[in-house]
Amino acid sequence: MKTHGFFAESAEAPLKPFSFDRRDVRSNDVAIEILYCGVCHSDLHQARNDWSNTLYPSVPGHEIVGRVTDVGSDVTRFRVGDRVAVGCMVDSCSHCDQCRQGDEQYCREGATWTYNGIDRITKEVTFGGYARHIVVRDDFVLSVPDSLDLSRVAPILCAGITTYSPLRFRNVGPGSRVGVAGLGGLGHMAVKLATGLGADVTVISRSKSKEGSALALGAGGFLVSTDSQAMKEAAGSFDLIIDTIPVQHDVSEFFPLVDIDGAIVMVGQLGATPAFNTSPLLIGRRQLAGSIIGGIAQTQELLDFCGRKNILADCEMIRMEEINDAFVRLEKGDVHYRFVIDMASFTEMV
Amino acid sequence: MKTHGFFAESAEAPLKPFSFDRRDVRSNDVAIEILYCGVCHSDLHQARNDWSNTLYPSVPGHEIVGRVTDVGSDVTRFRVGDRVAVGCMVDSCSHCDQCRQGDEQYCREGATWTYNGIDRITKEVTFGGYARHIVVRDDFVLSVPDSLDLSRVAPILCAGITTYSPLRFRNVGPGSRVGVAGLGGLGHMAVKLATGLGADVTVISRSKSKEGSALALGAGGFLVSTDSQAMKEAAGSFDLIIDTIPVQHDVSEFFPLVDIDGAIVMVGQLGATPAFNTSPLLIGRRQLAGSIIGGIAQTQELLDFCGRKNILADCEMIRMEEINDAFVRLEKGDVHYRFVIDMASFTEMV
Repeated sequence: MKTHGFFAESAEAPLKPFSFDRRDVRSNDVAIEILYCGVCHSDLHQARNDWSNTLYPSVPGHEIVGRVTDVGSDVTRFRVGDRVAVGCMVDSCSHCDQCRQGDEQYCREGATWTYNGIDRITKEVTFGGYARHIVVRDDFVLSVPDSLDLSRVAPILCAGITTYSPLRFRNVGPGSRVGVAGLGGLGHMAVKLATGLGADVTVISRSKSKEGSALALGAGGFLVSTDSQAMKEAAGSFDLIIDTIPVQHDVSEFFPLVDIDGAIVMVGQLGATPAFNTSPLLIGRRQLAGSIIGGIAQTQELLDFCGRKNILADCEMIRMEEINDAFVRLEKGDVHYRFVIDMASFTEMV
Repeated sequence: MKTHGFFAESAEAPLKPFSFDRRDVRSNDVAIEILYCGVCHSDLHQARNDWSNTLYPSVPGHEIVGRVTDVGSDVTRFRVGDRVAVGCMVDSCSHCDQCRQGDEQYCREGATWTYNGIDRITKEVTFGGYARHIVVRDDFVLSVPDSLDLSRVAPILCAGITTYSPLRFRNVGPGSRVGVAGLGGLGHMAVKLATGLGADVTVISRSKSKEGSALALGAGGFLVSTDSQAMKEAAGSFDLIIDTIPVQHDVSEFFPLVDIDGAIVMVGQLGATPAFNTSPLLIGRRQLAGSIIGGIAQTQELLDFCGRKNILADCEMIRMEEINDAFVRLEKGDVHYRFVIDMASFTEMV
């Protein structure tokens, strides 16, 4: 199938239009017309080759929402017209311990990422959701509940599951005291999801200016991390801190904030963290942990949870051709809270 | 009760003999004639004021083994002549959530440490086990199983419980793949205890020279951390690493060694750790955690476990007056694996 997208030709070039073929529908495939695609900070990193592993040409995008246009002969779970979504993975080995327990993101053979991955059959580089269509193995296609406004669902597929998975892994529920450090795409979903799970949520931010936004999103408290007196008073007041900060920072400043047996889970930054003192980890049996996205079954659980609670992302809708401007603003953290590409705009353009 | 001990007068002075009073036995107290006292690295840190909190005169020692010489009127669990032990704590508030759940080491009011603590009633500084006698609240006195060689029990009270507690907290048992980093007082107990719990144990050390000792202690494997090829091959091969290294080191070199959902638990070093890359924590949901000693009930469980398995520390017996030479050797890591003071030697001296 011929489709159109936007791609990066090199680390230096702006994204531009691109025509390419999606594979023919295999017996277990679902063909999807993409209606919306979220713009994740990873898209920017990958397009710019920040992780030194980008395979060009690169078509980013792994927060994909659309409608089924065709299904393979063995597909029973989806029909033409269904509202569906695709996240960060489009395939995995399906037989290792991690896949069997529903943690395909930690597949022993490596999950096949939605873009910049290698198709397990054709060995071609995968192209993501900055495009009009995509073809995906049915086991990696998710159902979007009818109750949800499709235009605000896309960020749930990455920002949402990235924060939901550690909340569930650590049994967050009513009475849990959850801190959310950083209030961007991930942070704003963490606030909504932890609140939805019944937790008492406090946003931790360097800047007092975000307090109004944090409370509007559902947070019950706001802690300014540069206010040493407030930080001191908040000692031991969290069971869990979800650290969504996407740039290098001193995570150890959060250690004293978590209670005995509490944890800080980093989900936003892959890279260096500065030297720190280990004492608060020992004296209080605290944990510093990490997490990436979540498995397919858990992502479906999340979509269903959002459907029941009507939890949606706060998005700034953009047209496909505005992506380069969006990247510039994203780099400055100037977005509330996630850019989402309206693919209908693109149809008109090509 | 008048007793004799060894004390530090200041950070610079060598330890020397000291006569002082132990409190009169309260209704819930147990008076103990100390027969053996282990020499922990903390004793050296405290005597030298390395943590800037030493209250002089200071009598170190928190790996105490002896016999009951007197009991208060309300004491029902102990009788004169019983073989008993005292570890790092001699009291706690007893009513906070941590004390109620048996984690007195994390008492909200602060546990009363065996030395350099403040007695909760008299407000006097506590004096430790480098002495002929001690008087301790009965709830903090432990029973030593009859089967154990008393002269080799003392290190179980700190080195033992410090490593046993995280093994139990993380449900180590048959089939668990446990790494033990560092092979000193704590490390050698970790090997014996993890092996005793049924785990497959590998010692991780910078030096190949310790391989024979590690295998003799019961380890099934030995990994040289400076051998990059061996470290690469060992990727993902542990569920848990107990890091007993007592000095500053780069703990992140162990991250790739633990499997998905695995943990590295630091128990040996309070202080700075150098900068590291967080990626292995995120990609694999790994945890870096800490732990200090263990609660009283768990310490009794440990002594009973050692009694059933005949697990004992490997000790170098010293006389009380040899303590300053022992400190010098301890500082160099020149001990297999724990110095234990034979207090009978001291009786003869004074």
